[in-house]
Amino acid sequence: MAKSSDSPFPPALRADGVQVADLDTSATPGFDGDKATGAKRLVERQQVLSDLQEKLYANGRSGDPRSVLLVLQGMDTAGKGGIVRHVIGSVDPQGVDHAAFGVPTEEERRHHYLWRIERKLPRGGQIGVFDRSHYEDVLVVRVHELVPRQVWAARYDEINEFERGLVEAGTTLVKVAMFVSLDEQRKRLARRLDRPDKYWKFNPGDIDERAYWPAYQEAYQAVLDRTSTDHAPWYVVPADRKWYARLAVTELLIDALSGLELTWPAPAFDVEEQRRRLAES
Amino acid sequence: MAKSSDSPFPPALRADGVQVADLDTSATPGFDGDKATGAKRLVERQQVLSDLQEKLYANGRSGDPRSVLLVLQGMDTAGKGGIVRHVIGSVDPQGVDHAAFGVPTEEERRHHYLWRIERKLPRGGQIGVFDRSHYEDVLVVRVHELVPRQVWAARYDEINEFERGLVEAGTTLVKVAMFVSLDEQRKRLARRLDRPDKYWKFNPGDIDERAYWPAYQEAYQAVLDRTSTDHAPWYVVPADRKWYARLAVTELLIDALSGLELTWPAPAFDVEEQRRRLAES
Repeated sequence: MAKSSDSPFPPALRADGVQVADLDTSATPGFDGDKATGAKRLVERQQVLSDLQEKLYANGRSGDPRSVLLVLQGMDTAGKGGIVRHVIGSVDPQGVDHAAFGVPTEEERRHHYLWRIERKLPRGGQIGVFDRSHYEDVLVVRVHELVPRQVWAARYDEINEFERGLVEAGTTLVKVAMFVSLDEQRKRLARRLDRPDKYWKFNPGDIDERAYWPAYQEAYQAVLDRTSTDHAPWYVVPADRKWYARLAVTELLIDALSGLELTWPAPAFDVEEQRRRLAES
Repeated sequence: MAKSSDSPFPPALRADGVQVADLDTSATPGFDGDKATGAKRLVERQQVLSDLQEKLYANGRSGDPRSVLLVLQGMDTAGKGGIVRHVIGSVDPQGVDHAAFGVPTEEERRHHYLWRIERKLPRGGQIGVFDRSHYEDVLVVRVHELVPRQVWAARYDEINEFERGLVEAGTTLVKVAMFVSLDEQRKRLARRLDRPDKYWKFNPGDIDERAYWPAYQEAYQAVLDRTSTDHAPWYVVPADRKWYARLAVTELLIDALSGLELTWPAPAFDVEEQRRRLAES
C-alpha cells in the first residue's frame, strides 16, 4: 500500500464491522473538537486539499492517468450536496469531474446499469465526484424491487470487479456512505418546508421513502458487508453534524491524495534553453 | 431587454469600437479602486454571484431551460484558468458545466467544428464555462491557415447564427476576450520557468506563438468586429492586472444573471399538506 497521511479519520471511519442500525449518527469519530474548532480546522484542511488537487491536476496534464473518485451515497438530506459545495467547492473547478445520478433516463434504462457510470468516470488528473452512483442499483432498486432479486443480487460481485478494474487503471476510490437519523431527516425536511428559498429542494416522494427506512438500512448494510473491499473500501460518515461530515470527507480525500505521493512533474523541456528563447521573443 | 444590474462594468467593457492593437491592457475600466479595494470587492461580489447562481440552479431543477454560458478567450497566460479557479470557484460546483477546448482530438477533427461545442453546452439551470471555444476556429485556425481562407471566413456568420439559436433556446452568453500585453505575457511565461511547481503550465510552443502576435491581434479584431452581436455581445477585459480581470468577469456574470430576473421557484406541492405528512412519517 502507498504511504498515506497520519489523519485519525480513515481508520475511525472504516466500514468494517459497522452495524448500520446501531450507528450513532451524531458521533464525530476521529475528531474530539466542537463545531467551532471543526469549522476552523476545515478551512485549514481545505487549503491542504486544494494544494494536493493542484498537484494531481498538474500530473494529469503531464500524462499521468491517475485520478481520485469520490462516491457519495446517503439518504435524502444526508448532506451529499453540501459536501460537493463545501468540500469539492474548495478546489479548482478545472480539476473536478462532477456527476449526479438521479432516476435513470429512458436512454440509460436501455443500457446496462454501469453504462452511465462509465461515461462519467474521471479523466487522469481529475477528482471525480459521484452524487449517488452505481450503488443506487443495489439500494433503491433493491428496496423497491425494481428488478428481480437474482438480478440485483448478482450486482455486488459485479460492482467489486468493476471497481477493481478502475483501481487497476489508476483510480483511487473514496466511497463515502453518509448517515443521518430518521429524526434528523425529519428536521431537515421540515426546514425545506419552512423556507420558500428551500422549497425547490423538497420532493413529496422523500416522505414516502421514510416508510422504507428499515429496508434501506438493510440495503446499506449489504452494501457495506459485500462491497467494502481492500481495493475500494467504504467509509461510514455520521452526518447529523454537517460541519463534521464536511471535515471528515475532506480528510478522506486528503488521505487518498497523499497516498499517491505526488510530486510536481519534471519539465519535458530544457529550462535554460526556454529562458533564452523567451528572452529573445 | 431584461433588466440588468447597475454595475458600471458591462458598458465600460463592451467591445464596440475597441481597437485591439491600441488597447491599454493595464487599464481597469469601470473601477477606480486599487488592488486591495478590488480584492475586497471581489469577495463581496462573489457572494452575490453565488446567491444568483443558486437561484438559477433551483429554477433549472424545476424545469427552467435557461442557462448562462461564459466563453473565455485570450492568449496564453491571459488568465483564463485563474477566472475559472477564482470566479467560477466561488459558486457551487453542482451548478457548473466546465469544458476546456484544446487542440481537437482525432475524433473531433472528423466532425464539424461546432460538434464538440454542442456536446458541452450547459444544461438548464447551469453556468457553462468554456475555456477556449468555437472561436479557436477563427483564431488559431486563421492565424496558422489550418483550413483555407474561404472556410474560416464563412464561420463568422455561422457562429452568429449558432449563437442566435443558443440564445433563443434560453442561454445567455457572456463572451469575454482577455488581453495581456506582449510584455506581460513574457513576465508570466518567465515565472513559469522560474518555479518547478509551475513548469507543468509551460509549453515551449507558447513562445513560438509570440511571433504571431500581430496576426492574433488581427484575428481577435475580426472576431470582435464580426461576432459582437446584440444577442451575444463581446466584452473586452484588460487582463494585465489579475485582480481586476477577476472582478470584471464576476460583474459580467452578476449582470447576466440579474438580467434573468430570477425568483425562487414556486412549490409544486401543497406546503401545509406536506407538513402534515412529514409530521406523521
